[in-house]
Amino acid sequence: MKIPEEGTLLRVFIGEADKWQSKPLYAAIVEAARKRGMAGATVTKGIMGFGRKSRMHAANILRLSEDLPVVIELVDSAEKISAFAQELDGMIKDGLVTMEPVHVALYRSDTAR
Amino acid sequence: MKIPEEGTLLRVFIGEADKWQSKPLYAAIVEAARKRGMAGATVTKGIMGFGRKSRMHAANILRLSEDLPVVIELVDSAEKISAFAQELDGMIKDGLVTMEPVHVALYRSDTAR
Amino acid sequence: MKIPEEGTLLRVFIGEADKWQSKPLYAAIVEAARKRGMAGATVTKGIMGFGRKSRMHAANILRLSEDLPVVIELVDSAEKISAFAQELDGMIKDGLVTMEPVHVALYRSDTAR
Repeated sequence: MKIPEEGTLLRVFIGEADKWQSKPLYAAIVEAARKRGMAGATVTKGIMGFGRKSRMHAANILRLSEDLPVVIELVDSAEKISAFAQELDGMIKDGLVTMEPVHVALYRSDTAR
Repeated sequence: MKIPEEGTLLRVFIGEADKWQSKPLYAAIVEAARKRGMAGATVTKGIMGFGRKSRMHAANILRLSEDLPVVIELVDSAEKISAFAQELDGMIKDGLVTMEPVHVALYRSDTAR
Repeated sequence: MKIPEEGTLLRVFIGEADKWQSKPLYAAIVEAARKRGMAGATVTKGIMGFGRKSRMHAANILRLSEDLPVVIELVDSAEKISAFAQELDGMIKDGLVTMEPVHVALYRSDTAR
Protein backbone atom coordinates (compact mmCIF):
# COMPACT_ATOMS: atom_id res chain seq x y z
CA MET A 1 0.00 0.00 0.00
CA LYS A 2 1.67 3.14 -1.20
CA ILE A 3 0.77 6.72 -1.90
CA PRO A 4 3.18 8.67 -4.10
CA GLU A 5 4.84 11.71 -2.56
CA GLU A 6 2.77 13.92 -4.80
CA GLY A 7 -0.75 12.74 -4.11
CA THR A 8 -4.26 14.03 -4.60
CA LEU A 9 -6.80 14.93 -1.93
CA LEU A 10 -10.41 14.20 -2.85
CA ARG A 11 -13.15 15.82 -0.81
CA VAL A 12 -16.84 14.97 -1.07
CA PHE A 13 -19.48 17.30 0.41
CA ILE A 14 -22.87 15.62 0.77
CA GLY A 15 -25.73 15.41 3.27
CA GLU A 16 -25.84 12.93 6.13
CA ALA A 17 -29.34 11.85 5.06
CA ASP A 18 -28.42 11.18 1.41
CA LYS A 19 -28.97 7.54 0.49
CA TRP A 20 -27.46 5.09 -1.96
CA GLN A 21 -29.39 1.85 -2.46
CA SER A 22 -31.15 2.45 0.85
CA LYS A 23 -27.97 2.86 2.92
CA PRO A 24 -26.33 6.15 3.88
CA LEU A 25 -24.48 7.53 0.87
CA TYR A 26 -21.43 8.40 2.96
CA ALA A 27 -21.13 4.82 4.18
CA ALA A 28 -21.57 3.54 0.61
CA ILE A 29 -18.77 5.85 -0.55
CA VAL A 30 -16.43 4.65 2.21
CA GLU A 31 -17.21 1.05 1.31
CA ALA A 32 -16.63 1.71 -2.40
CA ALA A 33 -13.28 3.30 -1.53
CA ARG A 34 -12.28 0.29 0.50
CA LYS A 35 -13.28 -2.14 -2.25
CA ARG A 36 -11.12 -0.21 -4.71
CA GLY A 37 -8.18 -0.49 -2.35
CA MET A 38 -7.91 3.23 -1.70
CA ALA A 39 -5.39 4.06 1.05
CA GLY A 40 -8.03 5.33 3.49
CA ALA A 41 -11.06 7.52 4.01
CA THR A 42 -12.23 9.85 6.74
CA VAL A 43 -15.81 11.03 7.23
CA THR A 44 -16.49 14.18 9.25
CA LYS A 45 -19.93 15.46 10.19
CA GLY A 46 -20.69 19.15 10.22
CA ILE A 47 -22.82 21.05 12.72
CA MET A 48 -24.40 23.46 10.21
CA GLY A 49 -24.43 24.12 6.51
CA PHE A 50 -26.37 24.94 3.43
CA GLY A 51 -26.15 24.20 -0.25
CA ARG A 52 -27.72 22.07 -2.84
CA LYS A 53 -31.43 21.33 -2.25
CA SER A 54 -31.64 24.02 0.38
CA ARG A 55 -31.71 26.64 -2.39
CA MET A 56 -35.27 25.65 -3.13
CA HIS A 57 -36.50 25.92 0.40
CA ALA A 58 -35.78 29.37 1.66
CA ALA A 59 -37.44 28.70 4.99
CA ASN A 60 -35.20 25.74 5.53
CA ILE A 61 -32.13 27.18 3.99
CA LEU A 62 -30.03 26.09 6.89
CA ARG A 63 -30.00 22.35 6.69
CA LEU A 64 -32.17 20.68 9.26
CA SER A 65 -30.45 18.78 12.01
CA GLU A 66 -31.52 15.49 10.47
CA ASP A 67 -29.61 16.35 7.32
CA LEU A 68 -26.35 17.85 8.45
CA PRO A 69 -23.47 18.08 6.01
CA VAL A 70 -20.79 15.41 5.91
CA VAL A 71 -17.37 15.66 4.31
CA ILE A 72 -15.50 12.58 3.11
CA GLU A 73 -11.77 12.85 2.49
CA LEU A 74 -9.42 10.51 0.68
CA VAL A 75 -5.76 10.88 -0.22
CA ASP A 76 -4.19 8.65 -2.85
CA SER A 77 -2.42 8.79 -6.21
CA ALA A 78 -3.88 11.08 -8.86
CA GLU A 79 -4.78 8.04 -10.98
CA LYS A 80 -6.68 6.22 -8.26
CA ILE A 81 -8.46 9.38 -7.16
CA SER A 82 -9.55 10.17 -10.73
CA ALA A 83 -10.90 6.68 -11.25
CA PHE A 84 -12.75 6.84 -7.96
CA ALA A 85 -14.24 10.22 -8.87
CA GLN A 86 -15.73 8.57 -11.96
CA GLU A 87 -17.41 6.01 -9.75
CA LEU A 88 -18.76 8.75 -7.46
CA ASP A 89 -20.31 10.40 -10.49
CA GLY A 90 -22.88 7.61 -10.59
CA MET A 91 -23.61 7.75 -6.86
CA ILE A 92 -24.01 11.44 -6.02
CA LYS A 93 -27.23 13.19 -7.05
CA ASP A 94 -26.66 16.22 -4.95
CA GLY A 95 -23.25 17.30 -3.72
CA LEU A 96 -19.81 18.66 -4.46
CA VAL A 97 -16.56 16.84 -5.16
CA THR A 98 -13.22 18.65 -5.20
CA MET A 99 -9.66 17.52 -5.91
CA GLU A 100 -6.39 19.17 -5.11
CA PRO A 101 -2.73 18.15 -5.17
CA VAL A 102 -1.11 17.45 -1.80
CA HIS A 103 2.40 16.61 -0.77
CA VAL A 104 2.44 13.39 1.25
CA ALA A 105 5.01 14.02 3.98
CA LEU A 106 4.39 10.74 5.81
CA TYR A 107 2.29 7.66 5.19
CA ARG A 108 2.88 4.86 7.56
CA SER A 109 1.07 1.76 8.72
CA ASP A 110 1.90 -0.44 11.67
CA THR A 111 1.16 -3.45 9.56
CA ALA A 112 3.75 -2.57 6.95
CA ARG A 113 6.55 -3.21 9.38
CA MET B 1 -26.00 28.04 -9.69
CA LYS B 2 -22.61 27.18 -11.05
CA ILE B 3 -19.08 26.77 -9.80
CA PRO B 4 -16.34 26.89 -12.42
CA GLU B 5 -14.19 23.80 -12.83
CA GLU B 6 -11.29 25.67 -11.32
CA GLY B 7 -12.74 26.96 -8.07
CA THR B 8 -11.43 28.29 -4.78
CA LEU B 9 -11.78 26.75 -1.35
CA LEU B 10 -12.15 29.24 1.49
CA ARG B 11 -11.58 28.02 5.03
CA VAL B 12 -12.32 30.06 8.15
CA PHE B 13 -10.88 28.99 11.53
CA ILE B 14 -12.62 30.69 14.46
CA GLY B 15 -13.93 29.84 17.91
CA GLU B 16 -17.37 28.44 18.59
CA ALA B 17 -17.97 31.14 21.20
CA ASP B 18 -17.04 34.07 18.94
CA LYS B 19 -19.96 36.44 18.44
CA TRP B 20 -21.13 38.79 15.73
CA GLN B 21 -23.89 41.20 16.70
CA SER B 22 -24.79 38.91 19.60
CA LYS B 23 -25.21 35.78 17.50
CA PRO B 24 -22.59 33.06 16.96
CA LEU B 25 -20.04 34.30 14.44
CA TYR B 26 -20.06 31.00 12.56
CA ALA B 27 -23.83 31.23 12.06
CA ALA B 28 -23.49 34.86 10.95
CA ILE B 29 -20.85 33.82 8.40
CA VAL B 30 -23.06 31.04 7.04
CA GLU B 31 -25.96 33.46 6.75
CA ALA B 32 -23.79 36.06 5.03
CA ALA B 33 -22.65 33.40 2.56
CA ARG B 34 -26.23 32.44 1.80
CA LYS B 35 -27.27 36.05 1.28
CA ARG B 36 -24.46 36.50 -1.21
CA GLY B 37 -25.64 33.45 -3.12
CA MET B 38 -22.53 31.40 -2.43
CA ALA B 39 -22.87 27.78 -3.59
CA GLY B 40 -22.82 26.33 -0.07
CA ALA B 41 -21.10 26.29 3.29
CA THR B 42 -20.15 23.61 5.78
CA VAL B 43 -19.36 24.19 9.45
CA THR B 44 -17.36 21.60 11.38
CA LYS B 45 -16.66 21.71 15.10
CA GLY B 46 -13.35 20.59 16.48
CA ILE B 47 -12.72 18.65 19.67
CA MET B 48 -9.53 20.47 20.69
CA GLY B 49 -7.36 23.31 19.52
CA PHE B 50 -5.38 26.37 20.33
CA GLY B 51 -4.52 29.62 18.68
CA ARG B 52 -5.44 33.21 18.77
CA LYS B 53 -6.38 34.47 22.24
CA SER B 54 -5.02 31.34 23.87
CA ARG B 55 -1.48 32.68 23.41
CA MET B 56 -2.12 35.12 26.21
CA HIS B 57 -3.39 32.60 28.67
CA ALA B 58 -0.79 29.94 29.13
CA ALA B 59 -2.83 28.12 31.73
CA ASN B 60 -5.71 27.87 29.32
CA ILE B 61 -3.68 27.35 26.25
CA LEU B 62 -5.86 24.51 25.14
CA ARG B 63 -9.17 26.04 24.36
CA LEU B 64 -11.82 25.39 26.95
CA SER B 65 -14.67 23.15 26.00
CA GLU B 66 -17.00 26.12 25.79
CA ASP B 67 -14.86 27.66 23.07
CA LEU B 68 -13.89 24.83 20.80
CA PRO B 69 -12.60 25.63 17.33
CA VAL B 70 -14.93 25.65 14.35
CA VAL B 71 -13.96 25.50 10.69
CA ILE B 72 -16.22 26.93 7.97
CA GLU B 73 -15.63 25.83 4.40
CA LEU B 74 -16.95 27.29 1.16
CA VAL B 75 -16.16 26.42 -2.45
CA ASP B 76 -17.04 28.83 -5.23
CA SER B 77 -15.47 30.86 -8.03
CA ALA B 78 -12.29 32.79 -7.21
CA GLU B 79 -14.18 36.06 -7.70
CA LYS B 80 -17.02 35.23 -5.33
CA ILE B 81 -14.64 33.85 -2.73
CA SER B 82 -12.45 36.97 -2.86
CA ALA B 83 -15.44 39.26 -2.46
CA PHE B 84 -16.71 37.20 0.45
CA ALA B 85 -13.28 37.28 2.11
CA GLN B 86 -13.53 41.08 2.05
CA GLU B 87 -16.82 40.87 3.91
CA LEU B 88 -15.31 38.49 6.46
CA ASP B 89 -12.57 41.02 7.11
CA GLY B 90 -15.13 43.19 8.90
CA MET B 91 -16.59 40.33 10.93
CA ILE B 92 -13.59 38.40 12.30
CA LYS B 93 -11.62 39.90 15.17
CA ASP B 94 -9.75 36.78 15.99
CA GLY B 95 -9.21 33.98 13.51
CA LEU B 96 -7.60 32.68 10.35
CA VAL B 97 -8.90 32.63 6.78
CA THR B 98 -7.17 30.64 4.05
CA MET B 99 -7.81 30.24 0.33
CA GLU B 100 -6.58 27.61 -2.07
CA PRO B 101 -7.41 26.58 -5.63
CA VAL B 102 -9.43 23.38 -6.04
CA HIS B 103 -10.56 21.41 -9.05
CA VAL B 104 -14.33 20.95 -8.96
CA ALA B 105 -14.86 17.40 -10.23
CA LEU B 106 -18.61 17.35 -9.60
CA TYR B 107 -21.20 19.88 -8.49
CA ARG B 108 -24.74 18.72 -8.69
CA SER B 109 -28.06 19.63 -7.18
CA ASP B 110 -31.29 17.67 -7.30
CA THR B 111 -33.17 20.86 -7.91
CA ALA B 112 -31.25 21.68 -11.06
CA ARG B 113 -32.75 18.74 -12.88
CA MET C 1 3.02 35.95 15.90
CA LYS C 2 2.85 36.08 12.15
CA ILE C 3 2.02 33.77 9.29
CA PRO C 4 3.29 34.80 5.85
CA GLU C 5 0.68 35.44 3.17
CA GLU C 6 1.81 32.32 1.40
CA GLY C 7 1.59 29.72 4.12
CA THR C 8 1.44 25.95 4.36
CA LEU C 9 -1.41 23.80 5.62
CA LEU C 10 -0.36 20.64 7.43
CA ARG C 11 -2.93 17.91 7.96
CA VAL C 12 -2.43 14.84 10.11
CA PHE C 13 -4.78 11.85 9.81
CA ILE C 14 -4.50 9.47 12.75
CA GLY C 15 -6.76 7.43 15.03
CA GLU C 16 -8.38 8.79 18.15
CA ALA C 17 -7.03 5.83 20.15
CA ASP C 18 -3.41 6.23 19.02
CA LYS C 19 -1.12 6.93 21.96
CA TRP C 20 2.15 8.77 22.49
CA GLN C 21 3.87 8.15 25.82
CA SER C 22 0.56 6.97 27.25
CA LYS C 23 -1.41 10.07 26.30
CA PRO C 24 -3.61 10.49 23.23
CA LEU C 25 -1.37 11.09 20.21
CA TYR C 26 -3.58 13.91 18.95
CA ALA C 27 -3.24 15.77 22.26
CA ALA C 28 0.53 15.18 22.23
CA ILE C 29 0.72 16.64 18.71
CA VAL C 30 -1.27 19.72 19.72
CA GLU C 31 0.99 20.22 22.72
CA ALA C 32 4.12 19.79 20.61
CA ALA C 33 2.75 22.40 18.18
CA ARG C 34 2.12 24.82 21.01
CA LYS C 35 5.60 24.31 22.45
CA ARG C 36 7.12 25.08 19.07
CA GLY C 37 5.14 28.31 18.91
CA MET C 38 3.03 27.27 15.93
CA ALA C 39 0.24 29.74 15.15
CA GLY C 40 -2.55 27.34 16.10
CA ALA C 41 -3.97 23.85 15.72
CA THR C 42 -7.43 22.41 15.24
CA VAL C 43 -8.43 18.81 15.93
CA THR C 44 -11.55 17.37 14.31
CA LYS C 45 -13.00 13.94 15.00
CA GLY C 46 -14.53 11.88 12.25
CA ILE C 47 -17.62 9.70 12.46
CA MET C 48 -16.32 6.89 10.24
CA GLY C 49 -13.22 5.93 8.35
CA PHE C 50 -10.74 3.29 7.40
CA GLY C 51 -7.09 3.07 6.61
CA ARG C 52 -3.87 1.99 8.13
CA LYS C 53 -4.21 -1.00 10.45
CA SER C 54 -7.69 -1.71 9.24
CA ARG C 55 -6.23 -3.23 6.06
CA MET C 56 -5.19 -6.26 8.06
CA HIS C 57 -8.56 -6.85 9.63
CA ALA C 58 -11.11 -7.24 6.93
CA ALA C 59 -13.86 -7.92 9.40
CA ASN C 60 -13.12 -4.68 11.17
CA ILE C 61 -12.28 -2.71 8.12
CA LEU C 62 -14.48 0.13 9.21
CA ARG C 63 -12.81 1.56 12.24
CA LEU C 64 -14.52 0.69 15.46
CA SER C 65 -16.24 3.47 17.32
CA GLU C 66 -13.51 3.45 19.94
CA ASP C 67 -10.94 4.29 17.31
CA LEU C 68 -12.52 6.89 15.09
CA PRO C 69 -10.31 8.98 12.81
CA VAL C 70 -9.08 12.39 13.90
CA VAL C 71 -7.66 15.11 11.67
CA ILE C 72 -5.27 17.73 13.05
CA GLU C 73 -4.75 20.90 11.02
CA LEU C 74 -2.08 23.58 11.35
CA VAL C 75 -1.34 26.60 9.18
CA ASP C 76 2.00 28.38 9.43
CA SER C 77 5.05 29.30 7.37
CA ALA C 78 6.53 26.62 5.11
CA GLU C 79 9.66 26.55 7.28
CA LYS C 80 7.86 26.03 10.56
CA ILE C 81 5.57 23.42 9.07
CA SER C 82 8.50 21.47 7.58
CA ALA C 83 10.34 21.48 10.88
CA PHE C 84 7.22 20.34 12.70
CA ALA C 85 6.67 17.54 10.19
CA GLN C 86 10.13 16.25 11.09
CA GLU C 87 9.10 16.10 14.72
CA LEU C 88 5.89 14.27 13.82
CA ASP C 89 7.96 11.67 12.00
CA GLY C 90 9.12 10.38 15.38
CA MET C 91 5.65 10.35 16.90
CA ILE C 92 3.39 8.74 14.29
CA LYS C 93 3.57 4.98 13.79
CA ASP C 94 0.43 4.73 11.79
CA GLY C 95 -1.07 7.64 9.90
CA LEU C 96 -0.88 10.13 7.07
CA VAL C 97 0.56 13.63 6.98
CA THR C 98 -0.06 15.97 4.04
CA MET C 99 1.11 19.48 3.24
CA GLU C 100 -0.23 21.98 0.75
CA PRO C 101 0.34 25.66 0.06
CA VAL C 102 -2.45 28.02 1.16
CA HIS C 103 -2.98 31.73 0.76
CA VAL C 104 -3.52 33.35 4.15
CA ALA C 105 -6.22 35.96 3.51
CA LEU C 106 -6.59 36.98 7.16
CA TYR C 107 -4.83 36.14 10.39
CA ARG C 108 -5.87 38.17 13.34
CA SER C 109 -5.74 37.90 17.09
CA ASP C 110 -7.57 40.04 19.64
CA THR C 111 -4.48 40.14 21.73
CA ALA C 112 -2.36 41.67 18.99
CA ARG C 113 -4.28 44.92 19.16
